Amino acid sequence: MGVSPKIAPSMLSSDFANLAAEAKRMIDLGANWLHMDIMDGHFVPNLTIGAPVIESLRKHTNAYLDCHLMVTNPMDYVEQMGKAGASGFTFHVEVAKENWQELVRKIKSAGMRPGVALKPGTPIEEVYPLIEGTTPVEMVLVMTVEPGFGGQKFMPNMMDKVMLLGSLTLILKNLLLMPFLLIETFNDVLGIGPGIKEQVPNT
Amino acid sequence: MGVSPKIAPSMLSSDFANLAAEAKRMIDLGANWLHMDIMDGHFVPNLTIGAPVIESLRKHTNAYLDCHLMVTNPMDYVEQMGKAGASGFTFHVEVAKENWQELVRKIKSAGMRPGVALKPGTPIEEVYPLIEGTTPVEMVLVMTVEPGFGGQKFMPNMMDKVMLLGSLTLILKNLLLMPFLLIETFNDVLGIGPGIKEQVPNT
Repeated sequence: MGVSPKIAPSMLSSDFANLAAEAKRMIDLGANWLHMDIMDGHFVPNLTIGAPVIESLRKHTNAYLDCHLMVTNPMDYVEQMGKAGASGFTFHVEVAKENWQELVRKIKSAGMRPGVALKPGTPIEEVYPLIEGTTPVEMVLVMTVEPGFGGQKFMPNMMDKVMLLGSLTLILKNLLLMPFLLIETFNDVLGIGPGIKEQVPNT
Repeated sequence: MGVSPKIAPSMLSSDFANLAAEAKRMIDLGANWLHMDIMDGHFVPNLTIGAPVIESLRKHTNAYLDCHLMVTNPMDYVEQMGKAGASGFTFHVEVAKENWQELVRKIKSAGMRPGVALKPGTPIEEVYPLIEGTTPVEMVLVMTVEPGFGGQKFMPNMMDKVMLLGSLTLILKNLLLMPFLLIETFNDVLGIGPGIKEQVPNT
């Protein structure tokens, strides 16, 4: 399929009091990206980290900081996330139906890669306009757990969305700049992608 | 006046990628408490840190974690902040006018010290009911900058509120369990409290 997989561990599971060291540990262990779960306590019932943490972390690493904004008002964060040094800015389709085009444009202007995420309950069709438009997103994050908390059980039926999107990616390859499919829960996906569990120590 | 001052540096100015070390540095330098600025991007236009960061930090320090919740929905955080290891839970009077009694009760049940904060634009009179009631808060945080961002200029006229509350504290001393007045911006208050600047290195 010509797909080059990326491993982007969620830093939500790391020691937030030693984030610089945790980031280095993940990169040293072979992570391609660092996935940063940004939650505002409104879109999801948890509040995690925001731009000041990204800004601090950026001073310690050159890693690709893949920021997933589980917030109700993504537009309000574009400028500060760009300045903080975020690499990717993934917003949720559920809160950006009206303004996703402006959002994507601003994310690009701020030097970040625009991405769209969808919750398990959101049909994959809702992201199609964002893929097919003239200013498409460059990544789709298919949630395989409910956003808001770590440590949840992988929902295998969400892989149907991934498969569907994967097929679409083949058809629309000239329109999609960088189609990505990230799986949030590694171990449960082992039946699909082998060789991951063995590389992650139990620490 | 029988007041014993406490120094509670805001960790918002620290390196969030090395929070454990930063916390140790502050305590080693003589800080009594660590002030944790929790912002949700809704009550204020910034999103900083939440319970997962407090939980991580608690594993590295026994320090008093003085958590200031600049959020629209403080009730939603009481349980998770208590479990995370917060020591103080200070909510804003502007968003708790209807339910502050239940809030204070739950904060105490969760093992934390209840506090109330007020923005510069909020009259001091609005916190009086929370001090005088049967389940009073144990701390008042008088904001001398607009909440939401660090590095602002101290508003000296806010000290009028502090003076007023200080007088009231003398009168109501049997009702107040632990009256505290925290000043967010140290250096500008030097005319009032000497000997602070000299102890804080320029790092």
